[in-house]
Parts: sequence; C-alpha cells; structure tokens
Amino acid sequence: MDIKSLIREISDFPKKGVAYKDITPLLMNPNAMNQVVELLLEKLPHRNIDKVVGIESRGFFFGTLLAQKLNAGFIPVRKPGKLPYKTHTETYELEYGIDSLEIHEDAIEKGEKILLHDDVLATGGTAAATSRLIEKCGGEIVQCNFLVELEFLNGMDRLRRFNNFSLIKYS
Amino acid sequence: MDIKSLIREISDFPKKGVAYKDITPLLMNPNAMNQVVELLLEKLPHRNIDKVVGIESRGFFFGTLLAQKLNAGFIPVRKPGKLPYKTHTETYELEYGIDSLEIHEDAIEKGEKILLHDDVLATGGTAAATSRLIEKCGGEIVQCNFLVELEFLNGMDRLRRFNNFSLIKYS
Repeated sequence: MDIKSLIREISDFPKKGVAYKDITPLLMNPNAMNQVVELLLEKLPHRNIDKVVGIESRGFFFGTLLAQKLNAGFIPVRKPGKLPYKTHTETYELEYGIDSLEIHEDAIEKGEKILLHDDVLATGGTAAATSRLIEKCGGEIVQCNFLVELEFLNGMDRLRRFNNFSLIKYS
Repeated sequence: MDIKSLIREISDFPKKGVAYKDITPLLMNPNAMNQVVELLLEKLPHRNIDKVVGIESRGFFFGTLLAQKLNAGFIPVRKPGKLPYKTHTETYELEYGIDSLEIHEDAIEKGEKILLHDDVLATGGTAAATSRLIEKCGGEIVQCNFLVELEFLNGMDRLRRFNNFSLIKYS
C-alpha cells in the first residue's frame, strides 16, 4: 500500500506558503494504520521499550498504537496547563516567541527505555523539547520516530544525539 | 484488575472545587489499557463499526485503539482551526460563553456506522456537539462510549437518543 498517497497536501494551511500534510485520510484507513505501525516497529533498534511518549495531540494517534503493540505504557506530553499533576516544563522557539511542553514528573522512572513519537517532524523544536523532558525524568531514549519528516526544515539536526527514524520524507 | 484505582483524583484542578480525574496512571499500564479496550468492546451492540470518532484530545488515546481492534477508520473531532480541510462546525455551551468543535466534511459517508468515544463524560456538551457533527455527515451512531462518567453532571441526559456506555462511574 502506498502510505504517502493517503497523506493529503493542503495549500496555505495554517498560513500562506505552507503545504500542510493532512494525515486524516490515512487515519480513516485501518489497513494503512496497521501497516504504519508495523513499519515503525520494524525500524526500532530493539523492542525492549518501557514507555512510548507521544506529543500532543497528533502524536497520540500512533503513539498509543505503538505502546499497545510494544506492551509499553503511554505517556502524553502536553501543552502547558493540561496535565493536572506535578510537571517538568521545557520551552522551545516558535517563529515569533516561545511555547512550552510539559510531562508529569512521575511519568518515567530512572533508566526506563523510551520511544519518542510524533506524527510530523518539522523544525524539531517540539521533539527536542520533549527529548529534554524525557531526560529530566531519567529516561533513556531508544529512538525518536515520526510518520512524516519535512527534510527541508532540517529538524533531524536537533536530534543528532539519538537514533531516529521517519517513515515518509518530503524533501 | 481494578481500573478505577488507576485513575488519580486531583483536587482543585483545573479550578477550585473540581476533583479532576487524571487517567495518565492508567495510560502507563499496558495491561490496564488492553483491559479497558476489551471491556468497551464487549458492551458494543455489535462490531460492525465503520469509523470511530474520538474527541480532541484525550478521546484520541482509546479512540485509536478501539478503531484498530474494530478494523475501523479513526476520525478526530478537533477544536476550531486545527483541521485543515473543509469542515462542519457545531457549538456547545461552556460555563461562561460557547466553544465549538469541527469534523472534516469528508470524514464519514452517508449511512456509515459510527462509534463516538471520549475519555470522560461530564456535562455532555462536547459529546452532544460531536453527535450532531456525525449526523451532519450522515453517520449513524451505534454507541457513545466513555471511559469515565461523572454521573452527578447528568451528561447522559443529552445523549438519550443513543445507545450509551460508560465503564467507570463517579456519583
């Protein structure tokens, strides 16, 4: 199955000049969903994963499915003010200004093996901030994986310390 | 396994007087996650489901897992401005003011059998708005299911037309 054909490009969203990668047609296709999960699993260095960390909110789609297949826990990293318990916070740069992400302090135990997942790797700011959150908790990142990578934004440059994989690339 | 023991109550979140139901300890436990999915599946009237609709963003956790087990598509209902293609919109009342939710116009075909899922049923405003979005697309709601129901908020009153199920109740 051609997974890439199920990703719809939307011109000028969320703003002029951006070709947004809409994964909702892929989510509507259960066979394609299963195939994505299997292809991502195949590229893991090993399957001894304790927790999968998914980034709000589109990282939750495949993050939970990956966790289920790996028999691992699922940890949501969320926008500020959404997680109700004690949190660690990391900021990252936007085009104008900064934003931040949070993780529950008790989400990960020291030495746990972590898979970081998001749907799209763009500039890498949110993924890099999430990697710092995981390390603040004492987790060891086994891999950062992504459904889609926008290679022209060079997000992988911010994740060079890690094993990384992206399934579909746009150059 | 006692699923309810994995739901953590956080006092005065997001505001004073509210006992927030934090499902993140449950998400960290893969056996409990699997059990929740199986228990929700058992209560469906039938398994002939074409699409599972999950409400942003915590409805995505179990929504994708349910879709995978049912071999159904997954449809995210999202906050305004998040879905990039043509959308239907429905508003719902908040304590002060209104908010709205969107679905892609092409998410559901006429006559498709739909499972509506969210993690927590509170006043039922978002679930009722989502049910209207599904019907605008021509979908037939087989069931609305929820991990948690806050019975004292009487959210089920807004969903009386449907078959409904909630796994864990707080009265």
